[in-house]
Amino acid sequence: MPHISLENDVPGIRSLVLFRPETGKHLYDLVQILLRGESTINEGDRELIAAYVSHRNNCSFCRNSHAAAARCLYENEQGIVNQVLSDPETASIPELLKSLLNIAGKVQIQGKAVLPQDIERARNAGANDRAIHDTVLIAATFSMFNRHVDGLDSFTPIDENLYNEMGMRMAKGYNFPVNNQVAHDIK
Amino acid sequence: MPHISLENDVPGIRSLVLFRPETGKHLYDLVQILLRGESTINEGDRELIAAYVSHRNNCSFCRNSHAAAARCLYENEQGIVNQVLSDPETASIPELLKSLLNIAGKVQIQGKAVLPQDIERARNAGANDRAIHDTVLIAATFSMFNRHVDGLDSFTPIDENLYNEMGMRMAKGYNFPVNNQVAHDIK
Repeated sequence: MPHISLENDVPGIRSLVLFRPETGKHLYDLVQILLRGESTINEGDRELIAAYVSHRNNCSFCRNSHAAAARCLYENEQGIVNQVLSDPETASIPELLKSLLNIAGKVQIQGKAVLPQDIERARNAGANDRAIHDTVLIAATFSMFNRHVDGLDSFTPIDENLYNEMGMRMAKGYNFPVNNQVAHDIK
Repeated sequence: MPHISLENDVPGIRSLVLFRPETGKHLYDLVQILLRGESTINEGDRELIAAYVSHRNNCSFCRNSHAAAARCLYENEQGIVNQVLSDPETASIPELLKSLLNIAGKVQIQGKAVLPQDIERARNAGANDRAIHDTVLIAATFSMFNRHVDGLDSFTPIDENLYNEMGMRMAKGYNFPVNNQVAHDIK
């Protein structure tokens, strides 16, 4: 049961943005730009970074929902999601994505854990400044979302089918539920 | 030296939002609502929560700048800032603020570290649902900012006077630098 009375029974972050839309709107706008805006990192890879950081932060709601979104976006390569959650270094993914996940994992620990050699590895694999910036900010942003969701003990479903449905909706984008109503095209 | 080429020499988070204004705008809007919007927690106390979380995350730029903003807002009670950074439980502050700082400190560790007894303590001291929600989100948000600033190794001045000047500007609010120009009324 959530630590505060949210006056709705939707799961995870959505319950919190409905409780406090003034802050929720900016959270949705931020994640829409980061995960769906123009980028050299494809949308599936960005969802995977979000799921990986959430996994490291022990936030099962964010891990399961963003892993489901990544599987949806990867289509025929869904198997890499569990491989990455288990260990990015041994997953069947390109070195560029491994190097970005390595940076995201360092950010999850703390900002100062990112070392020049972590950045150099990503550059050697082809990452530009924007990709490095966005990887750091995605990892930082999910370090926020994970704490927001779990710090208030928001409702975390256990039914895997619910996450698959969420993943399909999330793959289409993050639209803030306008006028405090629960829309059907958002997480 | 920052890990990426930011093409500006302003310090901390401001250098990052100028590099990537599409995400920066939402970061500023979020912090403006959280730290300056309507709340039962006064602005000095909210800045203090931000500084305390940043201190625990070892982010000296955010700690020093938000501590300076808190001192500016507290006026004649500036001494409590250093007391809280040292140990909130022994600081000369009301039990309500102590209980909120306790929750913020748990959120800094991870969301699931917040226990029902932490919430109960805050309620017994007079906190309502909104105050508890906002405390969790302020702590989560600064767990993001700290990682963003330090994960990219953005420029962190050491001159204390610069932070005092920042604090005075920040006390007036967080306005996004429009059109990518460095404004003089923002951090």
